[in-house]
Amino acid sequence: MKTDVQIAQEAKMLPISEVAEKLGLNEERLEHYGKYKAKVSLDVLEELKDKPNGKLVLVTAINPTPAGEGKTTVNIGLSMALNRIGKTAITAVREPSLGPSFGVKGGAAGGGYAQVVPMEDINLHFTGDFHAITTAHNLISALIDNHIHHGNQLNIDPRRIVWKRVLDMNDRALRQIVIGLGGKTNGVPRENGFDITVASEIMAIFCLAENLEDLKARVGDIIVAYSYDGNPIFAKDLNAQGAVALLMRDAVNPNIVQTLENTPALIHGGPFANIAHGCNSILATKLSLKLADYTITEAGFGGDLGAEKFFDIKCRFAGLEPNAAVIVATVRALKHHGGVKKDQLSNENLDALARGFENLEKHIENIKKFGVPAIVAINKFPTDTETELNYVIEKCKSLGAEAVLTEVWGKGGEGGEALAKKVVEVVESKPSNFKPLYDENESIKAKIEKIATEIYGATGVEFTKGCEKQIAEIEKLGFDKMPICMAKTQYSFSDDPTLLGRPRGFNITVRDIKISNGAGFLVALTGDIMTMPGLPKVPAANNIDILPNGEIVGLF
Amino acid sequence: MKTDVQIAQEAKMLPISEVAEKLGLNEERLEHYGKYKAKVSLDVLEELKDKPNGKLVLVTAINPTPAGEGKTTVNIGLSMALNRIGKTAITAVREPSLGPSFGVKGGAAGGGYAQVVPMEDINLHFTGDFHAITTAHNLISALIDNHIHHGNQLNIDPRRIVWKRVLDMNDRALRQIVIGLGGKTNGVPRENGFDITVASEIMAIFCLAENLEDLKARVGDIIVAYSYDGNPIFAKDLNAQGAVALLMRDAVNPNIVQTLENTPALIHGGPFANIAHGCNSILATKLSLKLADYTITEAGFGGDLGAEKFFDIKCRFAGLEPNAAVIVATVRALKHHGGVKKDQLSNENLDALARGFENLEKHIENIKKFGVPAIVAINKFPTDTETELNYVIEKCKSLGAEAVLTEVWGKGGEGGEALAKKVVEVVESKPSNFKPLYDENESIKAKIEKIATEIYGATGVEFTKGCEKQIAEIEKLGFDKMPICMAKTQYSFSDDPTLLGRPRGFNITVRDIKISNGAGFLVALTGDIMTMPGLPKVPAANNIDILPNGEIVGLF
Repeated sequence: MKTDVQIAQEAKMLPISEVAEKLGLNEERLEHYGKYKAKVSLDVLEELKDKPNGKLVLVTAINPTPAGEGKTTVNIGLSMALNRIGKTAITAVREPSLGPSFGVKGGAAGGGYAQVVPMEDINLHFTGDFHAITTAHNLISALIDNHIHHGNQLNIDPRRIVWKRVLDMNDRALRQIVIGLGGKTNGVPRENGFDITVASEIMAIFCLAENLEDLKARVGDIIVAYSYDGNPIFAKDLNAQGAVALLMRDAVNPNIVQTLENTPALIHGGPFANIAHGCNSILATKLSLKLADYTITEAGFGGDLGAEKFFDIKCRFAGLEPNAAVIVATVRALKHHGGVKKDQLSNENLDALARGFENLEKHIENIKKFGVPAIVAINKFPTDTETELNYVIEKCKSLGAEAVLTEVWGKGGEGGEALAKKVVEVVESKPSNFKPLYDENESIKAKIEKIATEIYGATGVEFTKGCEKQIAEIEKLGFDKMPICMAKTQYSFSDDPTLLGRPRGFNITVRDIKISNGAGFLVALTGDIMTMPGLPKVPAANNIDILPNGEIVGLF
Repeated sequence: MKTDVQIAQEAKMLPISEVAEKLGLNEERLEHYGKYKAKVSLDVLEELKDKPNGKLVLVTAINPTPAGEGKTTVNIGLSMALNRIGKTAITAVREPSLGPSFGVKGGAAGGGYAQVVPMEDINLHFTGDFHAITTAHNLISALIDNHIHHGNQLNIDPRRIVWKRVLDMNDRALRQIVIGLGGKTNGVPRENGFDITVASEIMAIFCLAENLEDLKARVGDIIVAYSYDGNPIFAKDLNAQGAVALLMRDAVNPNIVQTLENTPALIHGGPFANIAHGCNSILATKLSLKLADYTITEAGFGGDLGAEKFFDIKCRFAGLEPNAAVIVATVRALKHHGGVKKDQLSNENLDALARGFENLEKHIENIKKFGVPAIVAINKFPTDTETELNYVIEKCKSLGAEAVLTEVWGKGGEGGEALAKKVVEVVESKPSNFKPLYDENESIKAKIEKIATEIYGATGVEFTKGCEKQIAEIEKLGFDKMPICMAKTQYSFSDDPTLLGRPRGFNITVRDIKISNGAGFLVALTGDIMTMPGLPKVPAANNIDILPNGEIVGLF
């Protein structure tokens, strides 16, 4: 069986100009990055502002399991399939983080015959957007320590600097560090740490900004620290926003590439789906809506985190009106949610499937709470039995959601045609009545409680003592009227990763609230969220190589 | 008066395809990065391998002063002027480091009407080469700490890890840090620090590699640490070289841009000129020699560091035969070397000029020691008097070196035509008998002594006790048969930055020897060399902005 990178390297790519031209984008609107990648000028958005938007479809999933669901693969496959049945469709997805490429083997640009290409570029430097974010983030960090070193006129409390540093690398040794050592010429000693670049608030801002001016204003609004007397210090207090905007000047233009079937893909931005909102950029999505009949987009992790934030943060900010949501599930993953161990997933087990199905059932219910029609895509595996597949299809139907089998991993767009037809049918026949779950002007606690009880199915929310204090302070400072970005384990509806399926009778504990004032949301943290991954004992980097003929081995 | 960035933003650039086409490079050989930047495929080198090389001219300078000499400006101006007088000429220069752009105002892509463009891109992310180097460097760092974390099978002594981390940012607080804090899951605590990216050995390797395979082999040979029993640990012991090569896959292709007069420029690599050799990549220089009649290149700092390393490291490794060297000087800078304070440099002062001229005299002598014809370029300032200029011209003539006035800053290529004609005359009439200064198989001390006495004019060299021990260890380990890369202040021929002009009767003190085994040289350090700059009290970043119409302010 061919690996993903083998399939990708054998792809017959079209020059990206040809892919773009089919969308009406001429050379004037492209900045090329090699033959198969380009950036699209934001002027297009202005030129097409009176053109009606195409349809917007979110691809989300059940809670992820070690069995694998294939959300991005289905997303890409669906976009290819829509093109096969005569619709212009663009897949608008996130750019994967470079750092993890050297950790555990496995890329993040789809899989099998449903990939975006050139996949090795997309998984490595791509068009440099993440490097620009890393640089912009660390410029602010350097300005903070430089300010303190040169007299600290702003009265910054070095113990309350909330702006860390970032690298696009899995590097656990940088999580917690002490900087400024070695005497007077090296600055002021203090505790610090590095996050991975995708965890930077600049990444979240980048994905929520309407244009470069908006990005600049949001960067200025970032709270980087507090003064000794407890007042927030903003990035604009350090005059950082202009230089950051300059560093992001090219990055804000969405990137166009293609799928293995030469259909268009926009890959732009990739914020974490826990401490951030996990969606590709608003700019790419808006551009896609102007260029195609169908925009197929996604959000990180399962529907409890991804879809909720897509609706409550991205769609709210951008004024988007999603037409449908596809929930990806596999029989294997549902059985895992039903309690089956990984090595037993190939055996038929209807009892476990029924128990696990409750996870999918809750996701279907949740999508409906946002007023959006839901379709289930069952990503088919060879070990799935007829009985199992029929069980899922019938159960979905009884809940008012159509379930369709897809085989895009093995068959590409052809394997997604049934799903594509169903999506078109639903979008054309069922009206979407999208509305966010809560009003952002409600209290912090009310917003979190609504998400926890309505989306997670929790009984209630507990706030730690420290968190109560934070909430009071945030309200006092007037930063409470923002949407909530929940940081929670992706493996469960609850905040306990071992509670699979559809847990009931549990409480969510919120331990910490972080103000992402530039992004425009409050992050509610439940438990420890890892913002700087580590490498495994045998990192993928050990086996990665590029041969003299250009062939890449060991990557994905 | 217009700023550099204003002049650059008003430039009428040609699409880079047109610039490349004049060199015989068709679209097949280019990877575009926007409309005005491209990477040139290394296949061109193979295709043209039987074509005779063009002429190679080094632009170097007297020891730098606060008065400014304009070495890069003259380099670019000379290349434009050669094109005006009917020669194909390419300027092959270093890419500037991004970090310093936010510190002290001032770019590094020429100045006035002798610039390479798009200068703001060149000074910022350009084609991402430096970001690739940053990532590759930090991957090795992460692999080291990860190895120790997972059991330290290689027996690495955490106190003897010589591979730091890098960022392309002026950030003094990262010079000396402690990492791995916070308990077992965060790795093993140890001292560490960040250098600026241009100080990375990967940057030096990148600029000395013959191709990607050679780069991979050299990266494998980097000594990253020593074991508890004193044996060197190589990057290949961590299997890092394949992943690094993959990260550098695109970066190794030289970048083509243009001058303000639409003549070609190759900008590729930019290692430090103290702890590394300060020259653009061998690949860019070799490519240029195949494409143009004249390649105008340069090396960091004055001739004592730049030219010496260009000849003894770059030309030695690449088998290059330079045809001539241009030494850039200004009357103002010579007067500074003669003891005149900065605010007095506009006044005629023949005594000081005569004293300061000795600095230039020694540089002329040095170039001749390498068997290369020397030409002096006097970069003219409005305050220079006729008498002063004539003094320098006559003095040079008496030393057998022609001196020519240039006004490329204000007049572009036209202001460099006299210099261009002189360069052609010298190259066509005077044979070059280039030979390196020393045999790399001589002892470490003999090599350093030869550089210090013959090039710097020192009486002798003192080695500290610690350094004596290092030399013995290096000899024992068998790493002594490599060229020497001197790390010394750029302001003086001596290791004391206050000794201007042509100091005599001094000793050089070598305090430390660093093995750059991947690059293939030994770094001899005299005094403290700063490998991570800091930001000034009011960093340039404070005033940098990009306006809604795209205009950039405050940068350069």
